[in-house]
Amino acid sequence: MTRQQLIDQIRQKKTYLCVGLDTDITKIPKHLLAGSDPVFEFNSQIIDATLEYCVGYKINTAFYEALGLKGWEAMQKTVNYIPSTHLKIADAKRGDIGNTSSQYAKAFFETLNFDAITIAPYMGSDSVMPFLEYKDKWVILLGLTSNPGAADFELKKILTETDVLDEGMHIVKHQTNHLYEEVLMKASTWGTPENLMFVIGATQPDEFINIRRLTPEHFYLVPGIGAQGGSLKEISEKAMNGDCGILVNSSRTIIYASGKEDYAEKAGAVAMEYQKEMKRYLLRTENSI
Amino acid sequence: MTRQQLIDQIRQKKTYLCVGLDTDITKIPKHLLAGSDPVFEFNSQIIDATLEYCVGYKINTAFYEALGLKGWEAMQKTVNYIPSTHLKIADAKRGDIGNTSSQYAKAFFETLNFDAITIAPYMGSDSVMPFLEYKDKWVILLGLTSNPGAADFELKKILTETDVLDEGMHIVKHQTNHLYEEVLMKASTWGTPENLMFVIGATQPDEFINIRRLTPEHFYLVPGIGAQGGSLKEISEKAMNGDCGILVNSSRTIIYASGKEDYAEKAGAVAMEYQKEMKRYLLRTENSI
Repeated sequence: MTRQQLIDQIRQKKTYLCVGLDTDITKIPKHLLAGSDPVFEFNSQIIDATLEYCVGYKINTAFYEALGLKGWEAMQKTVNYIPSTHLKIADAKRGDIGNTSSQYAKAFFETLNFDAITIAPYMGSDSVMPFLEYKDKWVILLGLTSNPGAADFELKKILTETDVLDEGMHIVKHQTNHLYEEVLMKASTWGTPENLMFVIGATQPDEFINIRRLTPEHFYLVPGIGAQGGSLKEISEKAMNGDCGILVNSSRTIIYASGKEDYAEKAGAVAMEYQKEMKRYLLRTENSI
Repeated sequence: MTRQQLIDQIRQKKTYLCVGLDTDITKIPKHLLAGSDPVFEFNSQIIDATLEYCVGYKINTAFYEALGLKGWEAMQKTVNYIPSTHLKIADAKRGDIGNTSSQYAKAFFETLNFDAITIAPYMGSDSVMPFLEYKDKWVILLGLTSNPGAADFELKKILTETDVLDEGMHIVKHQTNHLYEEVLMKASTWGTPENLMFVIGATQPDEFINIRRLTPEHFYLVPGIGAQGGSLKEISEKAMNGDCGILVNSSRTIIYASGKEDYAEKAGAVAMEYQKEMKRYLLRTENSI
Protein backbone atom coordinates (compact mmCIF):
# COMPACT_ATOMS: atom_id res chain seq x y z
CA MET A 1 0.00 0.00 0.00
CA THR A 2 1.38 3.43 -0.96
CA ARG A 3 1.27 6.55 1.21
CA GLN A 4 -1.27 8.12 -1.16
CA GLN A 5 -3.53 5.05 -1.00
CA LEU A 6 -3.41 5.19 2.79
CA ILE A 7 -4.26 8.91 2.83
CA ASP A 8 -7.13 8.31 0.39
CA GLN A 9 -8.55 5.64 2.71
CA ILE A 10 -8.29 7.98 5.69
CA ARG A 11 -10.07 10.79 3.81
CA GLN A 12 -12.80 8.59 2.39
CA LYS A 13 -13.66 6.86 5.63
CA LYS A 14 -12.81 9.74 7.98
CA THR A 15 -10.84 7.56 10.32
CA TYR A 16 -7.21 6.88 11.22
CA LEU A 17 -7.97 3.96 13.50
CA CYS A 18 -5.86 0.81 13.48
CA VAL A 19 -7.36 -2.20 15.24
CA GLY A 20 -4.82 -4.27 17.15
CA LEU A 21 -5.36 -8.01 16.96
CA ASP A 22 -3.49 -8.96 20.16
CA THR A 23 -5.65 -12.04 20.31
CA ASP A 24 -5.07 -13.95 23.54
CA ILE A 25 -6.71 -17.37 23.49
CA THR A 26 -7.31 -17.18 27.27
CA LYS A 27 -9.35 -13.98 26.85
CA ILE A 28 -11.63 -14.75 23.93
CA PRO A 29 -15.24 -15.84 24.50
CA LYS A 30 -15.42 -19.43 25.70
CA HIS A 31 -17.97 -20.58 23.09
CA LEU A 32 -15.30 -20.14 20.38
CA LEU A 33 -12.95 -22.69 21.91
CA ALA A 34 -14.97 -25.62 20.57
CA GLY A 35 -14.14 -24.65 16.95
CA SER A 36 -11.12 -25.82 14.95
CA ASP A 37 -9.39 -22.42 14.92
CA PRO A 38 -10.80 -20.18 17.67
CA VAL A 39 -8.22 -17.41 17.16
CA PHE A 40 -8.95 -17.03 13.46
CA GLU A 41 -12.70 -17.28 14.09
CA PHE A 42 -12.43 -14.49 16.68
CA ASN A 43 -10.29 -12.33 14.38
CA SER A 44 -12.46 -12.74 11.31
CA GLN A 45 -15.57 -11.69 13.24
CA ILE A 46 -13.72 -8.68 14.70
CA ILE A 47 -12.52 -7.70 11.22
CA ASP A 48 -16.02 -7.95 9.73
CA ALA A 49 -17.42 -5.78 12.50
CA THR A 50 -14.74 -3.06 12.44
CA LEU A 51 -13.80 -2.84 8.76
CA GLU A 52 -15.68 0.34 7.99
CA TYR A 53 -14.32 2.22 11.02
CA CYS A 54 -10.60 1.61 10.55
CA VAL A 55 -7.85 1.84 7.94
CA GLY A 56 -5.56 -0.89 9.23
CA TYR A 57 -5.05 -3.96 11.38
CA LYS A 58 -2.03 -4.60 13.55
CA ILE A 59 -1.27 -8.23 14.27
CA ASN A 60 0.88 -8.67 17.37
CA THR A 61 3.00 -11.69 16.47
CA ALA A 62 3.78 -12.63 20.10
CA PHE A 63 0.22 -13.77 20.77
CA TYR A 64 0.34 -16.11 17.75
CA GLU A 65 3.84 -17.45 18.40
CA ALA A 66 2.77 -18.35 21.94
CA LEU A 67 0.45 -20.94 20.36
CA GLY A 68 3.17 -22.48 18.20
CA LEU A 69 2.23 -23.96 14.82
CA LYS A 70 -1.52 -23.43 15.36
CA GLY A 71 -0.88 -19.77 16.12
CA TRP A 72 1.28 -19.25 13.05
CA GLU A 73 -1.49 -20.78 10.97
CA ALA A 74 -4.10 -18.49 12.54
CA MET A 75 -1.88 -15.49 11.81
CA GLN A 76 -1.49 -16.51 8.18
CA LYS A 77 -5.24 -16.96 7.75
CA THR A 78 -5.90 -13.62 9.45
CA VAL A 79 -3.54 -11.66 7.17
CA ASN A 80 -5.17 -13.24 4.14
CA TYR A 81 -8.63 -12.37 5.48
CA ILE A 82 -7.92 -8.63 5.74
CA PRO A 83 -8.95 -6.90 2.50
CA SER A 84 -6.37 -4.98 0.47
CA THR A 85 -8.09 -1.69 1.31
CA HIS A 86 -6.60 -1.98 4.80
CA LEU A 87 -2.98 -1.65 5.91
CA LYS A 88 -1.76 -4.98 7.28
CA ILE A 89 0.82 -4.39 10.00
CA ALA A 90 2.98 -7.12 11.55
CA ASP A 91 3.75 -5.83 15.04
CA ALA A 92 6.83 -8.02 15.25
CA LYS A 93 9.59 -5.68 16.49
CA ARG A 94 12.24 -7.56 14.55
CA GLY A 95 15.77 -6.38 13.68
CA ASP A 96 19.08 -8.22 13.22
CA ILE A 97 22.27 -8.06 11.14
CA GLY A 98 21.74 -7.52 7.41
CA ASN A 99 21.52 -11.08 6.11
CA THR A 100 19.14 -12.04 8.94
CA SER A 101 16.94 -8.96 8.51
CA SER A 102 16.62 -9.96 4.84
CA GLN A 103 15.12 -13.25 6.01
CA TYR A 104 12.66 -11.45 8.30
CA ALA A 105 11.68 -9.16 5.41
CA LYS A 106 11.04 -12.24 3.30
CA ALA A 107 9.00 -13.82 6.11
CA PHE A 108 6.67 -10.84 6.61
CA PHE A 109 6.53 -9.22 3.14
CA GLU A 110 6.59 -12.35 0.95
CA THR A 111 5.68 -15.52 2.86
CA LEU A 112 3.07 -13.60 4.85
CA ASN A 113 1.65 -10.75 2.80
CA PHE A 114 1.96 -7.90 5.32
CA ASP A 115 2.22 -4.27 4.14
CA ALA A 116 4.25 -3.10 7.12
CA ILE A 117 6.35 -4.38 10.00
CA THR A 118 7.49 -2.81 13.27
CA ILE A 119 11.30 -2.82 13.66
CA ALA A 120 13.59 -2.22 16.65
CA PRO A 121 16.38 0.28 15.90
CA TYR A 122 19.08 -0.76 18.41
CA MET A 123 21.33 -2.56 15.88
CA GLY A 124 21.35 0.37 13.43
CA SER A 125 21.13 0.89 9.69
CA ASP A 126 21.92 -2.55 8.30
CA SER A 127 19.24 -4.08 10.51
CA VAL A 128 16.63 -1.76 8.92
CA MET A 129 17.69 -1.34 5.28
CA PRO A 130 16.66 -4.81 3.98
CA PHE A 131 13.03 -4.01 4.86
CA LEU A 132 13.17 -0.66 3.02
CA GLU A 133 14.12 -2.32 -0.26
CA TYR A 134 10.58 -3.63 -0.84
CA LYS A 135 8.33 -1.53 -3.07
CA ASP A 136 5.09 -0.30 -1.48
CA LYS A 137 5.97 -1.87 1.88
CA TRP A 138 6.59 -0.04 5.14
CA VAL A 139 9.05 -0.07 8.00
CA ILE A 140 7.51 1.20 11.24
CA LEU A 141 10.54 1.92 13.40
CA LEU A 142 10.34 2.14 17.19
CA GLY A 143 10.83 5.77 18.20
CA LEU A 144 9.40 6.63 21.60
CA THR A 145 7.34 3.76 22.98
CA SER A 146 4.36 3.87 25.33
CA ASN A 147 5.75 1.66 28.11
CA PRO A 148 7.47 2.73 31.36
CA GLY A 149 10.75 1.21 30.15
CA ALA A 150 10.99 3.99 27.54
CA ALA A 151 12.74 5.98 30.27
CA ASP A 152 15.59 3.47 30.51
CA PHE A 153 17.24 4.14 27.15
CA GLU A 154 14.93 5.93 24.67
CA LEU A 155 14.78 9.04 26.84
CA LYS A 156 18.49 9.10 27.66
CA LYS A 157 20.28 12.19 26.44
CA ILE A 158 23.13 11.53 24.08
CA LEU A 159 26.09 13.44 22.74
CA THR A 160 25.53 14.41 19.14
CA GLU A 161 27.91 15.28 16.34
CA THR A 162 26.97 18.94 16.75
CA ASP A 163 28.05 19.08 20.39
CA VAL A 164 31.05 21.29 20.99
CA LEU A 165 33.82 20.11 23.30
CA ASP A 166 36.72 22.19 24.63
CA GLU A 167 40.28 20.86 24.80
CA GLY A 168 39.72 19.23 28.17
CA MET A 169 36.78 17.24 26.74
CA HIS A 170 34.35 19.46 28.58
CA ILE A 171 31.18 20.09 26.67
CA VAL A 172 30.73 23.81 26.10
CA LYS A 173 27.62 23.57 23.96
CA HIS A 174 25.27 20.63 24.10
CA GLN A 175 22.24 19.81 21.96
CA THR A 176 20.83 17.33 24.50
CA ASN A 177 19.13 15.04 22.03
CA HIS A 178 17.28 12.09 23.41
CA LEU A 179 18.23 8.71 21.98
CA TYR A 180 14.80 8.42 20.35
CA GLU A 181 15.33 11.76 18.58
CA GLU A 182 18.63 10.51 17.19
CA VAL A 183 16.74 7.43 15.96
CA LEU A 184 14.15 9.61 14.19
CA MET A 185 16.75 11.85 12.59
CA LYS A 186 19.14 9.13 11.50
CA ALA A 187 16.41 6.81 10.21
CA SER A 188 14.92 9.69 8.21
CA THR A 189 18.04 9.52 6.07
CA TRP A 190 17.57 5.76 5.46
CA GLY A 191 13.95 5.85 4.33
CA THR A 192 11.38 8.42 3.20
CA PRO A 193 7.86 9.36 4.29
CA GLU A 194 6.77 6.94 1.54
CA ASN A 195 8.22 3.83 3.21
CA LEU A 196 9.04 4.72 6.81
CA MET A 197 6.79 5.43 9.80
CA PHE A 198 7.64 5.64 13.49
CA VAL A 199 6.07 4.12 16.59
CA ILE A 200 5.32 6.96 19.01
CA GLY A 201 3.40 6.06 22.16
CA ALA A 202 0.31 8.03 23.14
CA THR A 203 1.51 8.12 26.73
CA GLN A 204 4.15 10.74 25.87
CA PRO A 205 1.94 13.55 24.45
CA ASP A 206 4.29 16.37 25.47
CA GLU A 207 6.97 15.02 23.17
CA PHE A 208 4.74 15.10 20.08
CA ILE A 209 5.31 18.73 19.13
CA ASN A 210 9.06 18.24 19.10
CA ILE A 211 8.69 14.92 17.25
CA ARG A 212 6.54 16.52 14.57
CA ARG A 213 9.14 19.27 14.19
CA LEU A 214 11.86 16.68 13.55
CA THR A 215 9.78 14.54 11.15
CA PRO A 216 7.07 16.76 9.67
CA GLU A 217 5.91 14.40 6.92
CA HIS A 218 6.19 10.92 8.40
CA PHE A 219 3.26 8.88 9.60
CA TYR A 220 3.31 7.71 13.22
CA LEU A 221 1.76 4.53 14.51
CA VAL A 222 0.45 5.51 17.92
CA PRO A 223 -0.29 2.78 20.47
CA GLY A 224 -1.18 3.45 24.07
CA ILE A 225 -4.68 4.93 24.06
CA GLY A 226 -7.26 3.03 26.06
CA ALA A 227 -5.77 0.41 28.40
CA GLN A 228 -2.41 2.22 28.61
CA GLY A 229 -3.97 5.63 29.37
CA GLY A 230 -3.18 7.89 26.38
CA SER A 231 -5.74 10.49 25.19
CA LEU A 232 -6.94 10.37 21.56
CA LYS A 233 -7.87 14.06 21.67
CA GLU A 234 -4.51 15.21 22.94
CA ILE A 235 -2.37 13.18 20.58
CA SER A 236 -4.58 14.09 17.59
CA GLU A 237 -4.18 17.79 18.37
CA LYS A 238 -0.45 17.55 18.86
CA ALA A 239 0.62 15.03 16.24
CA MET A 240 -1.56 15.38 13.12
CA ASN A 241 -0.22 17.00 9.98
CA GLY A 242 -1.93 18.05 6.72
CA ASP A 243 -2.05 14.44 5.50
CA CYS A 244 -3.39 13.25 8.87
CA GLY A 245 0.02 11.68 9.57
CA ILE A 246 -1.06 9.36 12.39
CA LEU A 247 -2.54 5.91 12.74
CA VAL A 248 -3.91 5.44 16.23
CA ASN A 249 -4.01 1.86 17.42
CA SER A 250 -6.43 0.37 19.91
CA SER A 251 -6.26 -3.29 20.79
CA ARG A 252 -7.74 -4.46 24.08
CA THR A 253 -10.40 -1.72 24.35
CA ILE A 254 -11.91 -2.86 21.05
CA ILE A 255 -11.35 -6.60 20.83
CA TYR A 256 -12.30 -7.33 24.44
CA ALA A 257 -15.20 -4.84 24.62
CA SER A 258 -17.36 -7.83 25.53
CA GLY A 259 -16.23 -11.28 26.63
CA LYS A 260 -19.50 -12.83 25.50
CA GLU A 261 -21.16 -13.94 22.26
CA ASP A 262 -21.81 -10.32 21.27
CA TYR A 263 -18.05 -9.57 21.26
CA ALA A 264 -17.91 -8.63 17.57
CA GLU A 265 -20.94 -6.35 17.78
CA LYS A 266 -19.49 -4.62 20.84
CA ALA A 267 -16.06 -4.31 19.17
CA GLY A 268 -17.74 -2.68 16.19
CA ALA A 269 -19.56 -0.24 18.48
CA VAL A 270 -16.32 0.84 20.20
CA ALA A 271 -14.54 1.18 16.84
CA MET A 272 -17.44 3.32 15.60
CA GLU A 273 -17.09 5.62 18.61
CA TYR A 274 -13.40 6.09 17.85
CA GLN A 275 -14.23 6.76 14.20
CA LYS A 276 -16.79 9.44 15.13
CA GLU A 277 -14.29 11.19 17.35
CA MET A 278 -11.54 10.93 14.72
CA LYS A 279 -13.87 12.37 12.08
CA ARG A 280 -14.18 15.56 14.15
CA TYR A 281 -10.42 15.98 14.46
CA LEU A 282 -9.91 15.25 10.75
CA LEU A 283 -12.50 17.82 9.69
CA ARG A 284 -10.90 20.39 11.97
CA THR A 285 -7.51 19.80 10.30
CA GLU A 286 -8.95 19.90 6.81
CA ASN A 287 -10.77 23.15 7.55
CA SER A 288 -7.62 24.73 8.87
CA ILE A 289 -5.56 24.02 5.73
CA MET B 1 19.94 -25.17 32.14
CA THR B 2 21.70 -23.53 35.11
CA ARG B 3 24.96 -21.57 34.99
CA GLN B 4 26.72 -24.37 36.87
CA GLN B 5 25.46 -27.02 34.42
CA LEU B 6 26.73 -24.91 31.53
CA ILE B 7 30.15 -24.47 33.17
CA ASP B 8 30.33 -28.23 33.86
CA GLN B 9 29.65 -28.95 30.17
CA ILE B 10 32.36 -26.49 29.12
CA ARG B 11 34.89 -28.06 31.48
CA GLN B 12 34.07 -31.65 30.60
CA LYS B 13 34.16 -31.16 26.85
CA LYS B 14 36.81 -28.41 26.75
CA THR B 15 34.79 -26.25 24.41
CA TYR B 16 32.70 -23.10 24.51
CA LEU B 17 31.49 -23.39 20.95
CA CYS B 18 27.90 -22.64 20.00
CA VAL B 19 26.78 -23.82 16.57
CA GLY B 20 24.47 -21.40 14.79
CA LEU B 21 21.68 -23.04 12.83
CA ASP B 22 21.01 -20.17 10.38
CA THR B 23 19.67 -22.73 7.98
CA ASP B 24 18.88 -21.16 4.61
CA ILE B 25 16.97 -23.52 2.35
CA THR B 26 18.61 -21.98 -0.72
CA LYS B 27 22.08 -22.87 0.60
CA ILE B 28 21.69 -26.46 1.80
CA PRO B 29 22.82 -29.38 -0.38
CA LYS B 30 20.42 -29.97 -3.23
CA HIS B 31 19.94 -33.69 -2.59
CA LEU B 32 18.08 -32.85 0.64
CA LEU B 33 15.34 -30.92 -1.15
CA ALA B 34 13.59 -34.11 -2.25
CA GLY B 35 12.78 -35.03 1.37
CA SER B 36 9.69 -34.02 3.32
CA ASP B 37 11.52 -31.63 5.68
CA PRO B 38 14.91 -30.66 4.21
CA VAL B 39 15.66 -28.03 6.87
CA PHE B 40 15.14 -30.44 9.76
CA GLU B 41 17.04 -33.19 7.95
CA PHE B 42 19.97 -30.80 7.42
CA ASN B 43 19.88 -29.62 11.06
CA SER B 44 19.66 -33.08 12.58
CA GLN B 45 22.72 -34.25 10.59
CA ILE B 46 24.64 -31.11 11.60
CA ILE B 47 23.70 -31.67 15.25
CA ASP B 48 24.79 -35.33 15.17
CA ALA B 49 28.14 -34.35 13.64
CA THR B 50 28.94 -31.43 15.97
CA LEU B 51 27.45 -32.53 19.29
CA GLU B 52 30.72 -33.50 20.96
CA TYR B 53 32.51 -30.28 19.98
CA CYS B 54 29.99 -27.71 21.22
CA VAL B 55 27.94 -26.82 24.29
CA GLY B 56 25.01 -25.10 22.58
CA TYR B 57 22.98 -24.49 19.44
CA LYS B 58 21.63 -21.13 18.37
CA ILE B 59 18.57 -21.23 16.15
CA ASN B 60 18.13 -18.02 14.15
CA THR B 61 14.35 -17.70 13.98
CA ALA B 62 14.37 -15.47 10.85
CA PHE B 63 15.46 -18.31 8.60
CA TYR B 64 12.56 -20.48 9.82
CA GLU B 65 9.92 -17.74 9.73
CA ALA B 66 10.89 -17.02 6.11
CA LEU B 67 9.47 -20.47 5.28
CA GLY B 68 6.16 -19.88 7.07
CA LEU B 69 4.40 -22.82 8.67
CA LYS B 70 6.88 -25.40 7.32
CA GLY B 71 9.72 -23.39 8.80
CA TRP B 72 8.07 -23.11 12.20
CA GLU B 73 7.57 -26.86 12.19
CA ALA B 74 11.24 -27.45 11.29
CA MET B 75 12.27 -25.15 14.15
CA GLN B 76 10.09 -27.03 16.61
CA LYS B 77 11.49 -30.40 15.52
CA THR B 78 15.05 -29.05 15.69
CA VAL B 79 14.69 -27.76 19.27
CA ASN B 80 13.28 -31.11 20.32
CA TYR B 81 16.15 -32.93 18.61
CA ILE B 82 18.88 -31.10 20.56
CA PRO B 83 19.75 -33.11 23.70
CA SER B 84 19.33 -31.51 27.13
CA THR B 85 23.12 -31.49 27.63
CA HIS B 86 23.26 -28.57 25.19
CA LEU B 87 22.02 -25.00 25.65
CA LYS B 88 19.19 -24.30 23.23
CA ILE B 89 19.23 -20.63 22.20
CA ALA B 90 16.44 -18.91 20.25
CA ASP B 91 18.20 -16.10 18.40
CA ALA B 92 14.96 -14.18 18.08
CA LYS B 93 15.85 -10.62 19.18
CA ARG B 94 12.39 -10.05 20.60
CA GLY B 95 11.26 -7.34 23.03
CA ASP B 96 7.97 -5.48 23.50
CA ILE B 97 5.81 -3.96 26.25
CA GLY B 98 5.32 -6.16 29.32
CA ASN B 99 2.16 -8.07 28.42
CA THR B 100 3.50 -8.79 24.93
CA SER B 101 6.95 -9.86 26.17
CA SER B 102 5.12 -12.32 28.45
CA GLN B 103 3.64 -13.89 25.33
CA TYR B 104 7.05 -14.13 23.67
CA ALA B 105 8.44 -15.74 26.83
CA LYS B 106 5.63 -18.26 26.69
CA ALA B 107 6.32 -18.91 22.99
CA PHE B 108 10.02 -19.63 23.41
CA PHE B 109 10.27 -21.06 26.94
CA GLU B 110 7.03 -23.07 27.08
CA THR B 111 5.56 -23.77 23.63
CA LEU B 112 9.07 -24.25 22.22
CA ASN B 113 11.40 -25.61 24.86
CA PHE B 114 14.34 -23.20 24.46
CA ASP B 115 16.74 -22.53 27.35
CA ALA B 116 17.59 -19.00 26.25
CA ILE B 117 16.44 -16.19 23.98
CA THR B 118 18.18 -13.12 22.57
CA ILE B 119 16.37 -9.87 23.47
CA ALA B 120 16.65 -6.30 22.14
CA PRO B 121 17.00 -3.71 24.93
CA TYR B 122 15.61 -0.56 23.27
CA MET B 123 12.22 -0.60 25.06
CA GLY B 124 13.77 -0.99 28.52
CA SER B 125 13.10 -2.94 31.69
CA ASP B 126 9.49 -4.06 31.26
CA SER B 127 10.34 -5.54 27.85
CA VAL B 128 13.00 -7.74 29.47
CA MET B 129 11.62 -8.67 32.91
CA PRO B 130 8.96 -11.20 31.82
CA PHE B 131 11.72 -13.42 30.38
CA LEU B 132 13.73 -13.26 33.62
CA GLU B 133 10.87 -14.69 35.65
CA TYR B 134 11.42 -18.21 34.31
CA LYS B 135 13.52 -20.55 36.44
CA ASP B 136 16.67 -21.96 34.78
CA LYS B 137 16.03 -19.97 31.58
CA TRP B 138 18.23 -17.24 30.15
CA VAL B 139 17.89 -13.79 28.66
CA ILE B 140 20.73 -12.97 26.26
CA LEU B 141 20.46 -9.21 25.89
CA LEU B 142 21.96 -7.33 22.95
CA GLY B 143 24.93 -5.33 24.19
CA LEU B 144 27.43 -4.46 21.48
CA THR B 145 26.61 -6.25 18.24
CA SER B 146 28.96 -7.38 15.48
CA ASN B 147 27.39 -5.49 12.57
CA PRO B 148 28.44 -2.10 11.09
CA GLY B 149 25.15 -0.54 12.31
CA ALA B 150 26.42 -0.88 15.90
CA ALA B 151 28.02 2.53 15.32
CA ASP B 152 24.62 4.20 14.74
CA PHE B 153 23.26 3.96 18.30
CA GLU B 154 25.06 1.36 20.44
CA LEU B 155 28.34 3.29 20.29
CA LYS B 156 26.77 6.71 20.85
CA LYS B 157 27.94 8.43 23.99
CA ILE B 158 25.24 9.29 26.44
CA LEU B 159 24.81 11.54 29.42
CA THR B 160 24.75 9.54 32.62
CA GLU B 161 23.37 10.26 36.05
CA THR B 162 26.89 10.85 37.31
CA ASP B 163 27.59 13.63 34.82
CA VAL B 164 27.96 17.03 36.41
CA LEU B 165 26.34 20.06 34.81
CA ASP B 166 26.93 23.71 35.70
CA GLU B 167 24.11 26.25 35.99
CA GLY B 168 24.17 26.99 32.25
CA MET B 169 23.66 23.27 31.48
CA HIS B 170 27.28 22.97 30.42
CA ILE B 171 28.81 19.64 31.30
CA VAL B 172 31.79 20.16 33.54
CA LYS B 173 32.50 16.49 34.16
CA HIS B 174 31.40 13.78 31.79
CA GLN B 175 31.62 9.99 32.10
CA THR B 176 31.18 9.42 28.35
CA ASN B 177 29.41 6.09 28.60
CA HIS B 178 28.41 4.43 25.39
CA LEU B 179 24.77 3.44 25.08
CA TYR B 180 25.74 -0.25 25.12
CA GLU B 181 27.60 0.26 28.43
CA GLU B 182 24.48 1.81 29.93
CA VAL B 183 22.56 -1.26 28.70
CA LEU B 184 25.06 -3.61 30.40
CA MET B 185 25.03 -1.68 33.67
CA LYS B 186 21.29 -1.15 33.88
CA ALA B 187 20.39 -4.69 32.83
CA SER B 188 22.82 -6.08 35.42
CA THR B 189 20.40 -4.73 38.04
CA TRP B 190 17.44 -6.56 36.41
CA GLY B 191 18.99 -10.02 36.21
CA THR B 192 21.97 -11.88 37.62
CA PRO B 193 24.86 -13.86 36.11
CA GLU B 194 22.59 -16.88 36.69
CA ASN B 195 19.90 -15.79 34.22
CA LEU B 196 21.35 -13.00 32.08
CA MET B 197 24.01 -13.04 29.36
CA PHE B 198 24.94 -10.37 26.82
CA VAL B 199 25.50 -10.48 23.08
CA ILE B 200 28.93 -8.98 22.39
CA GLY B 201 30.19 -9.13 18.81
CA ALA B 202 33.65 -10.54 18.08
CA THR B 203 34.27 -7.68 15.65
CA GLN B 204 34.76 -5.21 18.53
CA PRO B 205 37.65 -6.89 20.41
CA ASP B 206 39.07 -3.65 21.81
CA GLU B 207 35.88 -3.10 23.80
CA PHE B 208 36.09 -6.45 25.57
CA ILE B 209 38.40 -5.42 28.39
CA ASN B 210 36.11 -2.58 29.35
CA ILE B 211 33.04 -4.81 28.98
CA ARG B 212 34.55 -7.46 31.24
CA ARG B 213 35.33 -4.76 33.81
CA LEU B 214 31.65 -3.68 33.82
CA THR B 215 30.24 -7.21 33.97
CA PRO B 216 32.91 -9.49 35.44
CA GLU B 217 30.73 -12.56 36.01
CA HIS B 218 28.26 -12.60 33.12
CA PHE B 219 28.50 -14.94 30.19
CA TYR B 220 28.69 -13.37 26.72
CA LEU B 221 27.34 -14.89 23.55
CA VAL B 222 29.87 -13.87 20.94
CA PRO B 223 28.88 -13.96 17.27
CA GLY B 224 31.03 -12.59 14.48
CA ILE B 225 33.98 -14.96 14.14
CA GLY B 226 34.41 -16.57 10.73
CA ALA B 227 32.30 -14.93 7.98
CA GLN B 228 32.14 -11.60 9.84
CA GLY B 229 35.90 -11.45 10.50
CA GLY B 230 36.34 -11.69 14.31
CA SER B 231 39.30 -13.58 15.79
CA LEU B 232 38.68 -16.46 18.20
CA LYS B 233 42.13 -16.05 19.74
CA GLU B 234 41.76 -12.35 20.39
CA ILE B 235 38.30 -12.48 21.92
CA SER B 236 39.19 -15.52 24.03
CA GLU B 237 42.21 -13.71 25.47
CA LYS B 238 40.29 -10.53 26.15
CA ALA B 239 36.88 -11.78 27.26
CA MET B 240 37.27 -15.03 29.21
CA ASN B 241 36.88 -15.11 32.98
CA GLY B 242 37.55 -17.86 35.55
CA ASP B 243 34.32 -19.66 34.62
CA CYS B 244 35.12 -19.34 30.90
CA GLY B 245 32.37 -16.72 30.61
CA ILE B 246 31.96 -16.81 26.84
CA LEU B 247 30.05 -18.84 24.30
CA VAL B 248 31.48 -18.27 20.85
CA ASN B 249 29.06 -18.80 18.01
CA SER B 250 29.88 -19.87 14.50
CA SER B 251 27.14 -20.39 11.94
CA ARG B 252 28.02 -20.21 8.25
CA THR B 253 31.64 -21.39 8.61
CA ILE B 254 30.42 -24.64 10.16
CA ILE B 255 27.08 -25.42 8.57
CA TYR B 256 28.14 -24.53 5.01
CA ALA B 257 31.65 -26.02 5.26
CA SER B 258 30.66 -28.16 2.29
CA GLY B 259 27.67 -27.72 -0.01
CA LYS B 260 27.71 -31.39 -0.97
CA GLU B 261 26.64 -34.72 0.48
CA ASP B 262 29.54 -34.68 2.94
CA TYR B 263 28.23 -31.45 4.54
CA ALA B 264 27.73 -32.97 8.00
CA GLU B 265 31.15 -34.62 8.05
CA LYS B 266 32.80 -31.34 7.00
CA ALA B 267 30.77 -29.38 9.56
CA GLY B 268 31.96 -31.80 12.24
CA ALA B 269 35.58 -31.34 11.11
CA VAL B 270 35.36 -27.52 11.35
CA ALA B 271 33.64 -27.73 14.75
CA MET B 272 36.42 -30.07 15.91
CA GLU B 273 39.06 -27.54 14.83
CA TYR B 274 37.31 -24.84 16.86
CA GLN B 275 37.12 -27.20 19.83
CA LYS B 276 40.84 -27.97 19.66
CA GLU B 277 41.69 -24.29 19.61
CA MET B 278 39.25 -23.53 22.45
CA LYS B 279 40.73 -26.33 24.54
CA ARG B 280 44.11 -24.58 24.44
CA TYR B 281 42.64 -21.27 25.63
CA LEU B 282 40.63 -23.00 28.34
CA LEU B 283 43.64 -24.88 29.70
CA ARG B 284 45.63 -21.63 29.74
CA THR B 285 42.92 -19.95 31.82
CA GLU B 286 42.60 -22.90 34.20
CA ASN B 287 46.35 -23.00 34.72
CA SER B 288 46.46 -19.29 35.49
CA ILE B 289 43.83 -19.45 38.25
